[in-house]
Amino acid sequence: MADALKVGIAGLGTVGAAVVQLLSKHGGQIATKTGRAVTVTAVSARDRTRDRGIDVSAFEWFTDPVEMARTADVDIFVELIGGDNGPAEESVRAALARGIHVVTANKALLARHGVELAVLAEANDACLNYEAAVAGGIPIVKTLRESMASNDISRIYGILNGTCNYILTRMEAEGISFQDCLSDAQRLGYAEADPTFDIEGNDTAHKLAILTSLAFGTEISSDDIYVEGITSITTADIQAADELGFRIKLLGVAQRTDTGIEQRVHPTMVPKSSAIARIDGVLNAVAVDGDFVGEIVLVGPGAGGNATASSVVADLADIARGDETPVLGMPAAELNSYQRARMRLHEGGYYIRLSVFDRPGAFAEIARCMGDAGISLESIVQKRHANKDVPVKFDADLPQPVILITYETTEVAIKEALDVIMSKGVVSEQPQMIRIEKLN
Amino acid sequence: MADALKVGIAGLGTVGAAVVQLLSKHGGQIATKTGRAVTVTAVSARDRTRDRGIDVSAFEWFTDPVEMARTADVDIFVELIGGDNGPAEESVRAALARGIHVVTANKALLARHGVELAVLAEANDACLNYEAAVAGGIPIVKTLRESMASNDISRIYGILNGTCNYILTRMEAEGISFQDCLSDAQRLGYAEADPTFDIEGNDTAHKLAILTSLAFGTEISSDDIYVEGITSITTADIQAADELGFRIKLLGVAQRTDTGIEQRVHPTMVPKSSAIARIDGVLNAVAVDGDFVGEIVLVGPGAGGNATASSVVADLADIARGDETPVLGMPAAELNSYQRARMRLHEGGYYIRLSVFDRPGAFAEIARCMGDAGISLESIVQKRHANKDVPVKFDADLPQPVILITYETTEVAIKEALDVIMSKGVVSEQPQMIRIEKLN
Repeated sequence: MADALKVGIAGLGTVGAAVVQLLSKHGGQIATKTGRAVTVTAVSARDRTRDRGIDVSAFEWFTDPVEMARTADVDIFVELIGGDNGPAEESVRAALARGIHVVTANKALLARHGVELAVLAEANDACLNYEAAVAGGIPIVKTLRESMASNDISRIYGILNGTCNYILTRMEAEGISFQDCLSDAQRLGYAEADPTFDIEGNDTAHKLAILTSLAFGTEISSDDIYVEGITSITTADIQAADELGFRIKLLGVAQRTDTGIEQRVHPTMVPKSSAIARIDGVLNAVAVDGDFVGEIVLVGPGAGGNATASSVVADLADIARGDETPVLGMPAAELNSYQRARMRLHEGGYYIRLSVFDRPGAFAEIARCMGDAGISLESIVQKRHANKDVPVKFDADLPQPVILITYETTEVAIKEALDVIMSKGVVSEQPQMIRIEKLN
Repeated sequence: MADALKVGIAGLGTVGAAVVQLLSKHGGQIATKTGRAVTVTAVSARDRTRDRGIDVSAFEWFTDPVEMARTADVDIFVELIGGDNGPAEESVRAALARGIHVVTANKALLARHGVELAVLAEANDACLNYEAAVAGGIPIVKTLRESMASNDISRIYGILNGTCNYILTRMEAEGISFQDCLSDAQRLGYAEADPTFDIEGNDTAHKLAILTSLAFGTEISSDDIYVEGITSITTADIQAADELGFRIKLLGVAQRTDTGIEQRVHPTMVPKSSAIARIDGVLNAVAVDGDFVGEIVLVGPGAGGNATASSVVADLADIARGDETPVLGMPAAELNSYQRARMRLHEGGYYIRLSVFDRPGAFAEIARCMGDAGISLESIVQKRHANKDVPVKFDADLPQPVILITYETTEVAIKEALDVIMSKGVVSEQPQMIRIEKLN
């Protein structure tokens, strides 16, 4: 058997500790399967005395991860620090510059610097693996880099943030508000103390940027993503969606169009019958449409120390086995430049919830505005009439929720129509608009 | 760039022709991604004149696949002939013996000779890849051999036969009989003219045998599988399942137990809320429980020329990239011998449908027999009372369907109890028994 692969781990949080435990528990089978032992020899973290549930006494200790990357006698540098700059970036660059393989779970770093890092890795004949950076334990990076590499991909979409999916699932199941669900998620450790990054969709956008590059063979373009989070979603929207046969999910979607690639992250109405509609709680799921294979859907835990560690160690095992895959699926120089789709953003149906003043002609006004913008309506639901046993109290000043479902149209048309409707004074507040995704 | 990889394809049916088309259409991106061109140079089929929608004039033609394997100037031999012996086996052995890599979609061959072929491949430093042999376009072989290689797996289960799933889905959706669905499936090309192999569960068993070896690191043991097909499933069962919150799926299940590995293929009641319950039509799905990663579920097309070709070409691309993975995930000599679980077969709940003569004491007799066997009943449903508006006509000689759902018990206990019930003369025909699988 070849010499053991020496691994240095930078960052000993939940994932780092789980990687140490996994290698300790299953080191034997990894060596058998790959033909090489994989051994942690160095670690880096700030506080050596903290109890992490693992024995770190045998490892060379570095307080500074960059120093570890520059000087440690390791074959692989595992970056679990996080952040798209600072010590994470500096240490990864330092390791690659020495020709040391890097395994990372850092989506922010890759979304921002992925192409440069790929160039650096290639120049130094080092691997840069990052299965854990997207969708935790789900092997979507390998599926795209290897299994589906010979397909033309038309669309990739997924639930990539467990925090948001947990909140939306509980809002639907229990009819409780976004804010209450968020507080619960924080209490249970499913959401950060500062949840902005998750609930505003930025975390999903980072992961999507990486998937887009892998799926379409383009340079990573994390700034060219339309991003909308879930903070505006109300239980009224979720209930209306349910009645209309939909569920609301925060999706990341990347799609090939005639004018370029469209990347978007937003709350999405998905048909209840679709596979993606049934992904509940903190689970993640990714669906990929390939021209030969058809649609493949992968479902699994998107976060958590052990699941993430499983992906980190799978990356280590690939290196142990000698499997060297180009960082972004092909040599960086061969990537196409990212061509952003012309801003028509999502051609498809839309759900629109309006708060309409109950005045004569208000409905006609709305219908006319939609028609003028060339938008056909599939259905109009006035919510207070839903329960026929409750007598309707007429009050011209009390706005009533009205739900519109449109046939296929463009976002530009919808926004124009809603602007006009707002200007007519028939609605009391900014309309809610949620895209309907066409799914199998 | 390295020299082109020369590929010989044996078998030019739907899949073989699709492989030729895929390589022709996406050859450029495969070369870019893997660093080597992959070129078909030889083919083998019986009839050179048949129109397959592809141009075969540039390929060296062999009528005999074994001769191609023995003599053709190729780097990879693609076996798409089928069958667990004859020319398929002979040609694969001949290719491996020459040190030529083999890619195959042949589950029967691997289920029967997988370990010997792995030994032969290793001895000659050749790859033997077979992503297409299990679940068509779903990358489950790669997921087990690589992504989940550092997990201990407790259970793997899946819908592995599209024909059966299509039939069960239509029986449920349209309330039509097994026989009518089968005829339709044959007419639509989803079932073979002789469908025995699919509907009796043998095809699922072959695939399961391969998955078991990959999941548990054991030698393939395709004879140690309990196999039961779907021919006894009636619309009454499907309707009763629906009312009780279940769907019926033909599952292949392999599970680690205290006494060894349990492999079984049978119709299974799965909770409607489970991911596997929602896999409809000809789709396949595989779920794997790993100790670190948790449960991963992969869904996709389990058959079809293009989807299968996608997996075949993914295997070719792995070889082009230089990724050499041990055939069964580890060196064949390291595989554990297969230890069959002690015959208690499936501890869990059971669905039992009895045709009970409506005589005084019949119910008490049944309940007593179940109790004597140590079986607790979760529910008893007498179907004719389901609709309370229809008056019950008492007829002691007309058997009435009675559904029992048991709490967790063993198959041995169930079989004993049903034998006793049969001997008492209170039921008119052989009881129906369907296992309930515990799922998330």
